Amino acid sequence: MTVRQGFVARESQLKRETLEITRVSAAGTASSSDAVSVEEPLEIRLSAPGIDEFTLTITMRTPGHDDELALGFLYTEGVIESLGDVAVVEHCRPSSGELGIHNSIRVVLEADVAFDMSQLARHFYTASSCGVCGKTSIESVMQRRDTKIPDSLRLTFEQIQQLPVQLREQQTEFSATGGIHATGLIDGAGKVVRVREDVGRHNAMDKLVGSLLLESSLPLAEHGVVLSGRASFEMVQKAAAVTAQVIIAIGPPSSLAIALAKETGITLAGFLRDARFNLYSHESRLD
Amino acid sequence: MTVRQGFVARESQLKRETLEITRVSAAGTASSSDAVSVEEPLEIRLSAPGIDEFTLTITMRTPGHDDELALGFLYTEGVIESLGDVAVVEHCRPSSGELGIHNSIRVVLEADVAFDMSQLARHFYTASSCGVCGKTSIESVMQRRDTKIPDSLRLTFEQIQQLPVQLREQQTEFSATGGIHATGLIDGAGKVVRVREDVGRHNAMDKLVGSLLLESSLPLAEHGVVLSGRASFEMVQKAAAVTAQVIIAIGPPSSLAIALAKETGITLAGFLRDARFNLYSHESRLD
Repeated sequence: MTVRQGFVARESQLKRETLEITRVSAAGTASSSDAVSVEEPLEIRLSAPGIDEFTLTITMRTPGHDDELALGFLYTEGVIESLGDVAVVEHCRPSSGELGIHNSIRVVLEADVAFDMSQLARHFYTASSCGVCGKTSIESVMQRRDTKIPDSLRLTFEQIQQLPVQLREQQTEFSATGGIHATGLIDGAGKVVRVREDVGRHNAMDKLVGSLLLESSLPLAEHGVVLSGRASFEMVQKAAAVTAQVIIAIGPPSSLAIALAKETGITLAGFLRDARFNLYSHESRLD
Repeated sequence: MTVRQGFVARESQLKRETLEITRVSAAGTASSSDAVSVEEPLEIRLSAPGIDEFTLTITMRTPGHDDELALGFLYTEGVIESLGDVAVVEHCRPSSGELGIHNSIRVVLEADVAFDMSQLARHFYTASSCGVCGKTSIESVMQRRDTKIPDSLRLTFEQIQQLPVQLREQQTEFSATGGIHATGLIDGAGKVVRVREDVGRHNAMDKLVGSLLLESSLPLAEHGVVLSGRASFEMVQKAAAVTAQVIIAIGPPSSLAIALAKETGITLAGFLRDARFNLYSHESRLD
């Protein structure tokens, strides 16, 4: 597989921008410079056998790791099953601005990959009967890939409690801007071993998934994920697609996130703060 | 215009669900019941002159105010300009579950409304050339509607400082679950006069916009919005579409949110906490 990423700037220049702002307090106003997280659109274009290249999706993301983002998105959506399905990932179209940010990326599938538009269900607006009730959504993700979540990971209270600390320590962008989400990979020893950041939490997850795909580590054998924010249905769906056994969310979960975690066999914890958290499903992985 | 919403349950039953969970702390584990915010998919179907009814989008949302959500989405996307463009808004397809939650809603446009698929630019995946760089996105929103943001609203430091308190007081669901976003409408006197909640912050904004559209209060004359979370490009885009003069975000803004606020003439404040905040654009509205 060929990967061509066209960024000319250093990673840190892509991810944050320094601006003149005004700080306001009861004492009055003061000019100051401040770093904010960069948000730019990324067009993901897909070229599949027998189909003209088309725009699969446009997501608002923090530049950097675009190859991972595109591949992770395609994997969690069930379009690709392994790196072997992909011929090329490359930035396309001219870059914009003086930093040379590329906002379009093309993924070319191998000639023998069976691509079916209807796989994309929820992400294709023209789908005319997608059965949009929670139950059907859950059935749809379960059927898409033969997802069987292993049951080997065990985490202690102390390990779980340390996850936000480890996540924060590895969030280079959060420490600079305070305005960016992160997804961390938890290994069998309860350590955060990789972190991806993005203004969109789904993108942070997709980047992590893409990074794992690029080194052929999927599906996961004995891992979990830690989320800087909330656990929504889609975050659990993506975690299930890579067979993460545990999802630890610093924020709260939604009803459908809990339902999907229960159904798929994932341990879901949320509201992780002040030396306490809530467990919503499959508590047996708490050691 | 005809509005038919098919919910059989009480509003509060749609928005939160009570579950048995396990609370974990250093002292050990304890079973407990807890309320979580409901997340369910909503399919928004559109019926326009000369086009077969189709699925415009599917959004993961908290049930309730679905008519407002659908109308607000169509308004901020530039599909409709006023209530006069809409013939019918109604829940369609069978409801699901014992609460009778409806997850599909149909909007029928009036026969004289000119509907152009290409209006939907960023939200249509089949668009083949949408020019996805920040600049073009900004130009696109500027051109979509002749958006001219008025400059009449003035807010004091004390008024701005009180906004999160007012927002929180009116967030019935947040106080119950701790897991839901809100958008509040700020009037000319700096008061939060209406609040909409949703697990998706874009939906909370669309519901607020739809509620204003339903009483023919758009475009806004002298108002702003307060956001429980972050200010992304899309949130500023939606605020600009209703000519909100001020956006006060409790969370941080992204680079593109700031760029769009500067370009459109909106005052953007963020990181509102502990009696201080940051101003990112058009500071003259701070009195």
